[in-house]
Amino acid sequence: MSDGSAYRDAGVDIDAQEEALRRAKQRVRSTFTPGVLSDLGHVGGLFRPELSGMTEPLLVASADGVGTKLMVARMAGDYSTVGHDLVNHCVNDILVQGARPLFFLDYVGAGILEPEKMEQLVEGVAAGCEANGCALLGGETAEMPGFYQPGDYELVGFVVGWVDRPALIDGTRVRAGDRLIGLPSNGLHTNGYSLARRVFFDTLGLEVGSAVPIAGDPRTVGEVLLAVHRSYLPVVGPLLDSPGLHALAHITGGGLTDNLPRVLPEGLGAVVDRGSWDPPEIFRLLEHHGGVSTEEMFRVFNMGIGMVLIVAQEFAGQILGTLQAQGERPVEIGEVRKEVRSAG
Amino acid sequence: MSDGSAYRDAGVDIDAQEEALRRAKQRVRSTFTPGVLSDLGHVGGLFRPELSGMTEPLLVASADGVGTKLMVARMAGDYSTVGHDLVNHCVNDILVQGARPLFFLDYVGAGILEPEKMEQLVEGVAAGCEANGCALLGGETAEMPGFYQPGDYELVGFVVGWVDRPALIDGTRVRAGDRLIGLPSNGLHTNGYSLARRVFFDTLGLEVGSAVPIAGDPRTVGEVLLAVHRSYLPVVGPLLDSPGLHALAHITGGGLTDNLPRVLPEGLGAVVDRGSWDPPEIFRLLEHHGGVSTEEMFRVFNMGIGMVLIVAQEFAGQILGTLQAQGERPVEIGEVRKEVRSAG
Repeated sequence: MSDGSAYRDAGVDIDAQEEALRRAKQRVRSTFTPGVLSDLGHVGGLFRPELSGMTEPLLVASADGVGTKLMVARMAGDYSTVGHDLVNHCVNDILVQGARPLFFLDYVGAGILEPEKMEQLVEGVAAGCEANGCALLGGETAEMPGFYQPGDYELVGFVVGWVDRPALIDGTRVRAGDRLIGLPSNGLHTNGYSLARRVFFDTLGLEVGSAVPIAGDPRTVGEVLLAVHRSYLPVVGPLLDSPGLHALAHITGGGLTDNLPRVLPEGLGAVVDRGSWDPPEIFRLLEHHGGVSTEEMFRVFNMGIGMVLIVAQEFAGQILGTLQAQGERPVEIGEVRKEVRSAG
Repeated sequence: MSDGSAYRDAGVDIDAQEEALRRAKQRVRSTFTPGVLSDLGHVGGLFRPELSGMTEPLLVASADGVGTKLMVARMAGDYSTVGHDLVNHCVNDILVQGARPLFFLDYVGAGILEPEKMEQLVEGVAAGCEANGCALLGGETAEMPGFYQPGDYELVGFVVGWVDRPALIDGTRVRAGDRLIGLPSNGLHTNGYSLARRVFFDTLGLEVGSAVPIAGDPRTVGEVLLAVHRSYLPVVGPLLDSPGLHALAHITGGGLTDNLPRVLPEGLGAVVDRGSWDPPEIFRLLEHHGGVSTEEMFRVFNMGIGMVLIVAQEFAGQILGTLQAQGERPVEIGEVRKEVRSAG
């Protein structure tokens, strides 16, 4: 016990941690935007916001995790995409207030940090940051032997963005008669994985490598379940200055049912016409084999709509056109009405 | 399966989560500072920084966890203090760059969220935020059944602070001959818990309710191990404008050995006189019963010094006096020298 590694005997390997950190740093530097002043040796990341041209800059911050999508990543032996999910989720969460991301921090927890897994996780986070023009300013890795089950990794993210107060989207612009424009999701995004795992792996007895039981879909179950949560910043960003954009709702846990009313002012409700789009086949499959009611499906899953734009009726055509011109397939899914209490 | 609770059957109880959130919100509002613009219904927290009087405002951000101190909280059945640890740790991490905290976000992960445990966790975080004048701007709770072991809670925190560039502490002011002033820790803070748990609970066979085997200490093992990580903001904050304060080091994982060199410029090293203070009895106990070398002790634990101020020699007396006037017990523990490669 006098070989200087009592701490290692207790399950913590500081050297392996440092090797993982070294690899991570190389990747992280590629995300640095001009605002980043610190290198990664510092404890706190330093960021100089570009304030010129702003009347009243507001910071917008959000924290999130990936949920049990992590357990699918583990089953698939591939942690390289969940970091990208995490960044996109966080970026969407502040986008709905009109904010663009400045920087991101991550936290990785594990029983024992395996450097190659760490690299995969950081690769995903860094790729997500790059794609969203957001600096990966720092993060923390924690080895907690006995707390995490061997092979499990927790991944938590934190984004800080910026919006000038006159451009803040806070729901006050929403009026009765506004149109709801849905933007397609590309899968479950990061919600409903406890239920989805039960259906795919327990009820249907499939494995991550099995062909997904959806006609015409050549992917495996793992590929379908690990499809990266879309970032709506590229398509919605150009519309943030549009006077016709009244509000945005990111469809996460709680589905359309809970997330739409949250962004509406008192006295207004969202009426969604569920016949206006076809939920992708995966949701039908989950509903059927999961024994889940349609009501619950709309509260647990995004049902094919990952972001909703609430737009002035007279701007709806123009905004639809702008979205389509970007290759997006927007759907008019409903409207805002007075004194409607529940959505979905 | 048609009772609308298939998701609950999969282990996720959205209603219990919402009850926990409701209780948490009440507590969190008490931390709101004038900069907070959002209420807690919003996805992203909104914060308006007070920019007047700043020449070049810089944001400083840091992420951290509490490590396996969480496992001691679980053993003691008391999650009400670890949140305070977390906030203080994060606040100290950005304090070393001269930054004062603006806001904080937390993440709580668990298999099943028990509302009373959630309340304890949020209580600790909120108390820490209040004590540091830092708004608890938001957070995320995640139920991940099957990922977390029943009864375990992960707790992650993110802090964002602010420093005007001329007041930034980045190590460039440090000179050979600068004095090292150590400020006492009040226990293990948040580092070395894997080793400490092994010694107390495995080697010594004690329980959280056992009297701690330290002469004259009336506390239980649980009380000693859960002592809240100090925030050094109250005592160091008044010194941030002192021209004599050249750098600060927060003594966390890696101990004095790793954390001091990190804040020094190239070509300078810290020489610590280990005879200049008596490490509290708990560290002797861990060294003795853990079979840990002194070298490793100084890399795993803070050894009684939680923060080091690196100060100009000619200001050392004045700074010591200011600290003592605040009831602090600072210790001169060494000095900065040229071309010394290793510290500790």
